[in-house]
Amino acid sequence: MASQFPGEFSFIEWVKTQQPPNKTNLIGIGDDCAVLPKTQQKMLVTTDMLMEGSCFILAEAGAYRVGRKAMAVNLSDIAAMAGVPKYAFISLGLPRTMPYSEIQLLHRGMQDVANQFGVIIAGGDTNTWDGPLTVSITLIGETRSGGAVLRSGAQVDDWIFVSGSLGGSILGHHLDFVPRVQLAAELSAMVSLHAMVDISDGLAKDFSRILNASQVGAVILQQAIPINPAARKLAKSTGKRPLEHALGDGEDFELVFTVSAVDGERLQKLGQVADIPLSKIGEIVEEGFWLQNGIKRTPLQPMGYEHQFVVGG
Amino acid sequence: MASQFPGEFSFIEWVKTQQPPNKTNLIGIGDDCAVLPKTQQKMLVTTDMLMEGSCFILAEAGAYRVGRKAMAVNLSDIAAMAGVPKYAFISLGLPRTMPYSEIQLLHRGMQDVANQFGVIIAGGDTNTWDGPLTVSITLIGETRSGGAVLRSGAQVDDWIFVSGSLGGSILGHHLDFVPRVQLAAELSAMVSLHAMVDISDGLAKDFSRILNASQVGAVILQQAIPINPAARKLAKSTGKRPLEHALGDGEDFELVFTVSAVDGERLQKLGQVADIPLSKIGEIVEEGFWLQNGIKRTPLQPMGYEHQFVVGG
Repeated sequence: MASQFPGEFSFIEWVKTQQPPNKTNLIGIGDDCAVLPKTQQKMLVTTDMLMEGSCFILAEAGAYRVGRKAMAVNLSDIAAMAGVPKYAFISLGLPRTMPYSEIQLLHRGMQDVANQFGVIIAGGDTNTWDGPLTVSITLIGETRSGGAVLRSGAQVDDWIFVSGSLGGSILGHHLDFVPRVQLAAELSAMVSLHAMVDISDGLAKDFSRILNASQVGAVILQQAIPINPAARKLAKSTGKRPLEHALGDGEDFELVFTVSAVDGERLQKLGQVADIPLSKIGEIVEEGFWLQNGIKRTPLQPMGYEHQFVVGG
Repeated sequence: MASQFPGEFSFIEWVKTQQPPNKTNLIGIGDDCAVLPKTQQKMLVTTDMLMEGSCFILAEAGAYRVGRKAMAVNLSDIAAMAGVPKYAFISLGLPRTMPYSEIQLLHRGMQDVANQFGVIIAGGDTNTWDGPLTVSITLIGETRSGGAVLRSGAQVDDWIFVSGSLGGSILGHHLDFVPRVQLAAELSAMVSLHAMVDISDGLAKDFSRILNASQVGAVILQQAIPINPAARKLAKSTGKRPLEHALGDGEDFELVFTVSAVDGERLQKLGQVADIPLSKIGEIVEEGFWLQNGIKRTPLQPMGYEHQFVVGG
């Protein structure tokens, strides 16, 4: 028989043993709040909640990959601002029937990704209940010296780049992707990043957010879009074209960004940064959102789905 | 027929209209992360997840009070560090069947408490699913000039104080309490707070955490414990003594803290601070945890339940 959850206290004691030695000034361990050390940088904050049956199928994905994904989606948001991820706060809603070995696997998935990116798990809230598995992570980071890369900085004549290849992530990439933290760090040191987002809701939809925030338009070159083999595979069963999957599928977690033409030429010559291929997929124009095929331009509709928000008053 | 959830985008547009005008330097609105303005203070971070059926019964409490509570429990943790609450990040798991009017009431409950304490709702993640209502809030605050009040600062001969009165919160107080942010602010300006926690898991259990962290003991004076009328009412149906409810019931969300005897005498003369009654309930000793009734001392067992953690590596 699978061992049962030993209670929050024992679980948290175990969690502490999983963390690498703490080299920071973080205090507040076991207190009402975590107390973060002072920093000269601005703080970045992002939060994502993953829910069983909606964001993942536990039986298919396995607890380890769910934990990985829960941490990685937040890291991807920090990457999209070219930030340095620092502290994670993990809230869990654990089904009472979930075996303890599975709960530990879930945590190991989160911890392994945290370790990979130097993130300290600094707090959380653990609950058991009769509902499905829920994992809510808030990740706090810092800006690099260049500041946060927002969505609002795209300029007319900028070149548009995307990392990796797109589409068909549902076949596995949405669980196993590596968040582009390192790529963003190296890019921000090499060039002036004007605007950037990570692709969580699909290239067309996420890039339209840059256009809205920057009040510019774009022409996307159809032949330049890097299509993932998974998009071609998926297209065989969906009846859609691979291009549609590349433009519309969510959860690629690649970066799409704009830079000046001068910086763009440098990146195009390199072809890759931090071992990640970069593709120039278009240019920023005054207005509209166009897909260009040869000399023919057709309006590009934002496709994909909404699930996240960051608002201020 | 009740109106259905109009989708995350429409909901977030509505959420923005509910927030008072933003007087801060917060940027990143609609971006991948919120970007918090720089501060000279250390940051405090706390997170709490409230789950239907476990932390509340939606049909009994109503959506507005659930929203209130979800924000207030986090504020209580900031109060326990004598901090200034600043930014809230709200992740929601909304049942697909939840009418939009109820979702809006839930948000109004959170927004009203946020407004009351000057907290900006700075981001979040909204999801719909087939599971029960889940509300996960991460609250970020700052320390006041005196620094964070930890659990580890209690000293032998300190006087122990508690705010308000205790026990029976399940009869309503656990939903309708006012987090003691203002009290903590005024106390921190008046006296040197050595150690403090909020009572979320019961006086005995929460105070034992101060004793463990400070490596000291305490004598609690039985006759001095302020018993809430709700504890007496509840005792009639549970067969427990009102004292047991006052010592063991969770979710009073009052503050228990220690100060020097000199500061203690000042507080005792005042009798209240920020319109909240203060009771001296005991003193810190070398070791042990005792309940004193007249001249008789009996060992006090931490009662209550575990549900929250803040860990560091």
